Amino acid sequence: MEIFFSREISSGRCILSGDEAAHCIRVLRHREGDLISVIDGDGTLLSCRIISASQQKVETEIISETPDWGSHPYHLHLAVSPTKNNDRYEWFLEKACEIGTDEISPTIGTHSERKIFKISRAEKILVSAAKQSLKGTVPHINEPVTVKEFISGHGISPGQKEDGVLRLIAYCFDDSSCPRQSVKDVLNAYEGNEVIVMIGPEGDFSREEAELAISRGFIPVHLGQSRLRTETAAVTAAEAAYFRWM
Amino acid sequence: MEIFFSREISSGRCILSGDEAAHCIRVLRHREGDLISVIDGDGTLLSCRIISASQQKVETEIISETPDWGSHPYHLHLAVSPTKNNDRYEWFLEKACEIGTDEISPTIGTHSERKIFKISRAEKILVSAAKQSLKGTVPHINEPVTVKEFISGHGISPGQKEDGVLRLIAYCFDDSSCPRQSVKDVLNAYEGNEVIVMIGPEGDFSREEAELAISRGFIPVHLGQSRLRTETAAVTAAEAAYFRWM
Repeated sequence: MEIFFSREISSGRCILSGDEAAHCIRVLRHREGDLISVIDGDGTLLSCRIISASQQKVETEIISETPDWGSHPYHLHLAVSPTKNNDRYEWFLEKACEIGTDEISPTIGTHSERKIFKISRAEKILVSAAKQSLKGTVPHINEPVTVKEFISGHGISPGQKEDGVLRLIAYCFDDSSCPRQSVKDVLNAYEGNEVIVMIGPEGDFSREEAELAISRGFIPVHLGQSRLRTETAAVTAAEAAYFRWM
Repeated sequence: MEIFFSREISSGRCILSGDEAAHCIRVLRHREGDLISVIDGDGTLLSCRIISASQQKVETEIISETPDWGSHPYHLHLAVSPTKNNDRYEWFLEKACEIGTDEISPTIGTHSERKIFKISRAEKILVSAAKQSLKGTVPHINEPVTVKEFISGHGISPGQKEDGVLRLIAYCFDDSSCPRQSVKDVLNAYEGNEVIVMIGPEGDFSREEAELAISRGFIPVHLGQSRLRTETAAVTAAEAAYFRWM
């Protein structure tokens, strides 16, 4: 099943442009009148008939819509520090999308060796993974922020009341003042469906970052006994949620 | 922590040769008298003192041994068909080792596009993954066999009595005569600790392969609602066992 992607959707019309149009017309040789399948990236699969076709622009009329196509029963936001080797992070992006992830934040930690991350290429990888794994939703990737900025933006600020979101931070050291629980136990005990998981860089989170996260409502967890690379830890976090709701 | 690998171990001596010796002496500049850490690939970490050092051969005396180093409480054998793109299979090998896998069998199915697989490179990847993830055991990789050969070799032959091994086959089609259960449910209900999971090629198992497997005691399972690539399905199977025993 060939899936296309478009955000240009309005009043019963859907337009493919750029690579999507070229792929549709030049590679797959679709013509006016053909029916094609398009995801809008926000969860819906569209069945569309081609009205006018060029390699630059394909205009279609929407015949039917399938909402929540290939969706999962939880909302997972993974905040993962870029890996030294970019291929490893791109592999994580593809797998996180395949397994089921809604939002990804590249976070730069105190111990991060790589402090720059470009999201344009990441977006392409996520679109292609969503199409390949038959999901209507393309995980949203945010602009990179520092770990502390992420905690400030997504933690519970002092005085704010519980909002039902499960916030987890996975690090490797053990702090007797706040022992880590198993991610499996914490997920199984959780009755909501909105989860944020922070995964640090190769050098792990700093103690200061971990303490700030805990002070903002993040629960320290471990991902089991195996020593996992950053990208494997991130995929394991996605799998933990996947199995929790399986 | 720098880990070396050797199978040349006997009467209190451990020898590094080939790449391991060159890396130890030329790259890390170890000298006679230095203490190094070596895994034997069968689960044990050795602390060794260098007796004689050359770039071709490093002879050491074993000071202490740590058995079951980085071990896990189950035995997992993954039988996974080689992917069209070899990088994807090599990625699976690395991740399976990191998460925890004991034995890997490349299996060629009726629908496999790639019918040839060389294990020499796979062995190097597994050794390096075991060292990197601090495990004493290097997963054993078998020579490739056909799916039917694997089933004959690892299934329960007619008349043979139950041996307590949990045999699973994950495929994507649904056969009303034998509905698939969730891998999570089957693992949670299992009280043993020895699991075999078969994962098919991009084209999935054939009906005939699936029926043969079921007739030999393999339980048909699904890996959840997401549509996973072959290598992602294989890693998800490894994660399923990892979480079952977490």
